[in-house]
Amino acid sequence: MARTAIGIDLGGTNIKAGLVAEDGTVLAQAEAKTLAHEGPDAVMGRMAVLAGQMRGKAEADPVGLGVGSPGPLDPSVGQIYFTPNMPGWDGYPLGARLADRLKMPVRVENDANCAALAEHWRGAGQGTKTMILLTLGTGIGGGIIVDGKLVNGTRVTAGEVGHIVINDKGPKCGCGNHGCLEAYCGTAGIIARARELLDKPGTVSMLIEMAGRDFEKLSPALIGQAAKKGDGPAISIYKETGRLLGLGIVNLVNIFAPEVVILGGGVAANGAFIFPAVRDEVKRRAMRPGNEQVRIEAAAMGNDAGLIGAAGLLLH
Amino acid sequence: MARTAIGIDLGGTNIKAGLVAEDGTVLAQAEAKTLAHEGPDAVMGRMAVLAGQMRGKAEADPVGLGVGSPGPLDPSVGQIYFTPNMPGWDGYPLGARLADRLKMPVRVENDANCAALAEHWRGAGQGTKTMILLTLGTGIGGGIIVDGKLVNGTRVTAGEVGHIVINDKGPKCGCGNHGCLEAYCGTAGIIARARELLDKPGTVSMLIEMAGRDFEKLSPALIGQAAKKGDGPAISIYKETGRLLGLGIVNLVNIFAPEVVILGGGVAANGAFIFPAVRDEVKRRAMRPGNEQVRIEAAAMGNDAGLIGAAGLLLH
Repeated sequence: MARTAIGIDLGGTNIKAGLVAEDGTVLAQAEAKTLAHEGPDAVMGRMAVLAGQMRGKAEADPVGLGVGSPGPLDPSVGQIYFTPNMPGWDGYPLGARLADRLKMPVRVENDANCAALAEHWRGAGQGTKTMILLTLGTGIGGGIIVDGKLVNGTRVTAGEVGHIVINDKGPKCGCGNHGCLEAYCGTAGIIARARELLDKPGTVSMLIEMAGRDFEKLSPALIGQAAKKGDGPAISIYKETGRLLGLGIVNLVNIFAPEVVILGGGVAANGAFIFPAVRDEVKRRAMRPGNEQVRIEAAAMGNDAGLIGAAGLLLH
Repeated sequence: MARTAIGIDLGGTNIKAGLVAEDGTVLAQAEAKTLAHEGPDAVMGRMAVLAGQMRGKAEADPVGLGVGSPGPLDPSVGQIYFTPNMPGWDGYPLGARLADRLKMPVRVENDANCAALAEHWRGAGQGTKTMILLTLGTGIGGGIIVDGKLVNGTRVTAGEVGHIVINDKGPKCGCGNHGCLEAYCGTAGIIARARELLDKPGTVSMLIEMAGRDFEKLSPALIGQAAKKGDGPAISIYKETGRLLGLGIVNLVNIFAPEVVILGGGVAANGAFIFPAVRDEVKRRAMRPGNEQVRIEAAAMGNDAGLIGAAGLLLH
């Protein structure tokens, strides 16, 4: 009988679970609302229920459960350090509680790291030795794989690629620092640049109408729609986002000389405008020969990356 | 009989060789001028002669030769990619030539990586899993150790920590990019900031007399001497250097969450002024808990770090 593992992707809104085969195929799936306001024990309980459902679908008992969780955490013991978007989780021993409930091996890893493992296992990083994933969304997460293994820090966290400083006098970031990549290329940073551009006297853009003249309605998705219709200001917003992303990636290329840097997440959906600017900046600024060797590619694993990578923690 | 290896530190001015015991002790040493203008074959020949001398001092034949060499190189085959300060070395198969001459295993690694290995083996990084060394001098080199192993890039280079961009509109760097850490905290960057400060009307500093009113004579060592005598402007130059170094280190801490960041090289000799500023900046800007956990320490291995680390390539 085939070896399987259960993977869970714990998000701020939904919990996604899957039964994953040894080759990375998802054999069964289930989902529940996170309802994070009910606190960690309630959420952990829902995770255990989903895991139980997946276990019931397996021919032989799965080898264990892998969880991709937000926030810095200690993967060696499965303890959450803190989660910026789910209050009350500081120090929560998620791995131990789940193992106790399910009586099976449990491993917990940062969600972006799980996505990176999935891309390395089955996606755009397959066959590489050194690769970096950046997930672009409200924030910027990431995972770094060196010699086929995740780069994990001393005890709790590493791979915080969203918090590379590209300008020490730049805008304030959610982490408390200034000028982080996330402050420029996360959702808030993109919208701030869009507002600034649209506010300029004389700017002509369909975005103004599309947002119903209400800047509160600006979103990366809306800017992307306008860009796809050929709107100049919208295109320039994404090009600038690509340039800034490229600046951060230059640092990663100089540090790791990776084979591939993979961009995933919502903003990457507007890749046609972002990728050329990222590639230009990396080629122009990073050291040779790393700048010539590195590929900049779109993520290939889609929305199941997190749970597949989490299951992979147990499968190899 | 004890296992030994030969280590060579190839510098732009001198070649240093040593016979190194399995515990990292240097049993014998020899040195020669590099005379780089004579070209790579002549320099390789001098390296082979020194290695032969070290071999003659060993009780049993050493297990091999390790070389720490400047510039990006391919450690898998011992080929130099290019050396900014030694022309004519592009593509030179240093490892193969030496192995051919000496009939013994040869490994070649970047010199800053060798110094990092030495600090990890016997110095300020002993017993750590993840550590980073920055060597401060004319340029800024570095080595990164994760899970006890050097971070090496895909094919040729990685760990170019001196070329982390801290401000995309910053001064031009020797690598062609703008605003690299090296452009701020390498020798030229420090001197440029000193000139700017001393040029300001009203600046009172003993540095002006110490340099004989000739700004061409300014050097990090001279600025350090003035700082140690309590000269305000000299102290502020080093404090600012520390702050800027800290900015670069914030990026490394957010990426690697290392146990220790080690500062070595000439500039680190003025550590009393630099270290507090580095530590402040890291604590203030890097993500918790990495910012609290990381130690910022002075290198402990001195001038033999390069050859000891190079020998270590063969010894473990």
